[in-house]
Amino acid sequence: MRTRAAVALAAGKPLEVMDVNLEGPRAGEVLIEIKATGICHTDEFTLSGADPEGLFPAILGHEGAGVVVDVGAGVTSVKKGDHVIPLYTPECRTCPSCLSRKTNLCTSIRATQGQGVMPDGTSRFSTLDGDPILHYMGCSTFSNHTVLPEIAVAKIRPDAPFDKVCYIGCGVTTGIGAVINTAKVEIGAKAVVFGLGGIGLNVIQGLRLAGADMIIGVDINPAKKAMAERFGMTHFVNPKDCENVVQEIVNLTKTPFDQIGGADYSFDCTGNVKVMRDALECTHRGWGVSVIIGVAPAGATIETRPFQLVTGRVWKGTAFGGARGRTDVPKIVDWYMEGKIEIDPMITHQLTLNEINRGFDLMHSGESIRSVVVY
Amino acid sequence: MRTRAAVALAAGKPLEVMDVNLEGPRAGEVLIEIKATGICHTDEFTLSGADPEGLFPAILGHEGAGVVVDVGAGVTSVKKGDHVIPLYTPECRTCPSCLSRKTNLCTSIRATQGQGVMPDGTSRFSTLDGDPILHYMGCSTFSNHTVLPEIAVAKIRPDAPFDKVCYIGCGVTTGIGAVINTAKVEIGAKAVVFGLGGIGLNVIQGLRLAGADMIIGVDINPAKKAMAERFGMTHFVNPKDCENVVQEIVNLTKTPFDQIGGADYSFDCTGNVKVMRDALECTHRGWGVSVIIGVAPAGATIETRPFQLVTGRVWKGTAFGGARGRTDVPKIVDWYMEGKIEIDPMITHQLTLNEINRGFDLMHSGESIRSVVVY
Repeated sequence: MRTRAAVALAAGKPLEVMDVNLEGPRAGEVLIEIKATGICHTDEFTLSGADPEGLFPAILGHEGAGVVVDVGAGVTSVKKGDHVIPLYTPECRTCPSCLSRKTNLCTSIRATQGQGVMPDGTSRFSTLDGDPILHYMGCSTFSNHTVLPEIAVAKIRPDAPFDKVCYIGCGVTTGIGAVINTAKVEIGAKAVVFGLGGIGLNVIQGLRLAGADMIIGVDINPAKKAMAERFGMTHFVNPKDCENVVQEIVNLTKTPFDQIGGADYSFDCTGNVKVMRDALECTHRGWGVSVIIGVAPAGATIETRPFQLVTGRVWKGTAFGGARGRTDVPKIVDWYMEGKIEIDPMITHQLTLNEINRGFDLMHSGESIRSVVVY
Repeated sequence: MRTRAAVALAAGKPLEVMDVNLEGPRAGEVLIEIKATGICHTDEFTLSGADPEGLFPAILGHEGAGVVVDVGAGVTSVKKGDHVIPLYTPECRTCPSCLSRKTNLCTSIRATQGQGVMPDGTSRFSTLDGDPILHYMGCSTFSNHTVLPEIAVAKIRPDAPFDKVCYIGCGVTTGIGAVINTAKVEIGAKAVVFGLGGIGLNVIQGLRLAGADMIIGVDINPAKKAMAERFGMTHFVNPKDCENVVQEIVNLTKTPFDQIGGADYSFDCTGNVKVMRDALECTHRGWGVSVIIGVAPAGATIETRPFQLVTGRVWKGTAFGGARGRTDVPKIVDWYMEGKIEIDPMITHQLTLNEINRGFDLMHSGESIRSVVVY
């Protein structure tokens, strides 16, 4: 079939919106009509050329929602008409990772996904001239229609609005999941969130959901404060306004009983490796847990004195918020529909596919929290 | 009273065995006759001058066992005649750390302990001329008699031999505790131990106790292999015999089902920050946990790409094996007496107090696993 897509022809160039060919689903695959897609920093990371594993030409986009149009042979878990969210982290339920009970990082199709092709090694996308176009993160939601493996499709309730729940395909789940799956924050905890962009806001609402007592937001831009408070931030620290952000947080978290101080949990949502170190070191001696969410530049390394760990701090990271997509994403959609979490105020801009490059401009200028393309 | 002690008069000098004055226990304190003490790398670290927080003159030693001789006012948990192990990590059961349920790092007397004095700010030790001598790690087991706060004394069964269970005061508990308290290794796990000295051997027997399937030992000295096997090591890797120790371990842990590979748990017992990185990176994508036990040189930092954590590895550390001294040390003594763990083959040398400097020589030359001074 023909469909309309924004194609990344080369690194550092704007996307080009054009008609492309899309082959139907093969065995175990699902054809989806994408109804809405968010534009995420990871798309920007790849489009800019900064991602050393970026491949071109490709159809980017990994934060979508849509409707199943057709299924290939053997597909049993979704059918035509089902509302779904594509998963860049699949959940096959049969690989060593899925069966470990310890990780969400399904590895069944990792190799081919990284190469921009379907599990059988080929792409379903091509130009009208027949030249192949690569898939991206196994999703390619910047196309009005796309094909995914069945194991990478989460079935969601039909009454959820596509233009909001598409955000659950990446940002919402990453932020909330980091809190509840990776850090396992408990009621009454004190937590710090570094970076108050979209991921940071979702971490904040995850912390509110988890019942944290103190939710400290850290950002060098004071304009972020109001929105973060709206999602549950209780304290704001601007590193530009204090000598030492680690000491500031340690002091802020001291109590008359506990004069050691330090956050129980911290989350890096910046991708800056220096901030990651601060995030670790501001946690509480003995039990502080710091979770890295942000994606660092290629080759950058994190660093600290081992004493920080020997005295009880734990350094971890999270991908897709530790969520198992087919199992957990439908639950998060329910939470949104039930009002347990909010998404609407974070979708600051709605665009048509033709306007998609404006979404990247809005991201660069810091004007948007999330721009969503509605097909 | 007068007692006999090996005194560290200055950094980099041998200990001097001499008579010293020891004041009796004040309120909340306990006077202990030390019957035996191990000589640990941490004593050597301080004596050498490498420890930036080392203070002199001091009576080193923190791995002892002995008998209560006298107690100060208000002491209720031990009495004259009780057999005890001094604790460099106390357990007050009332501070924020003890009450957190999350850490063993009691902070009630941390400040004064670090300054080489008792909680009231004074030392009980002095020269015969009356010049104060500092305590060390709150223990000073290189003295035939010493005074400790009640909260830093673990009462043990009276039939346990002092010259063996003194090792539980540091090395045994650190190694076994790292496995069961910090890493919480489960039956069937695959684990790697970097560094097959005394701590490494105790990690290995902790892994055996925990039911690990695969216990890989890593050391550049092949002479360590036999003893490590005796304690439960199932595979040996010499980094000098392979191109890339991380890849070697990943390959070794692959199965027909799991072609990703990597250890479930790893333990650094070397103190080398480069080894700490290898220890993290050889663990399994998705769930590998790496525990730092070794003490790094002052100022040294650990480093890795955040991607290692984002893809599910966890970096932690342990001090005193995460053990709460008064609660857990008596249990480990029981395990020794019941034959669940072994200590005897690790005590390679027994010395008199007058021979104590030979214990440091044996450590330097690598001849000893553990030298114990018997009073």
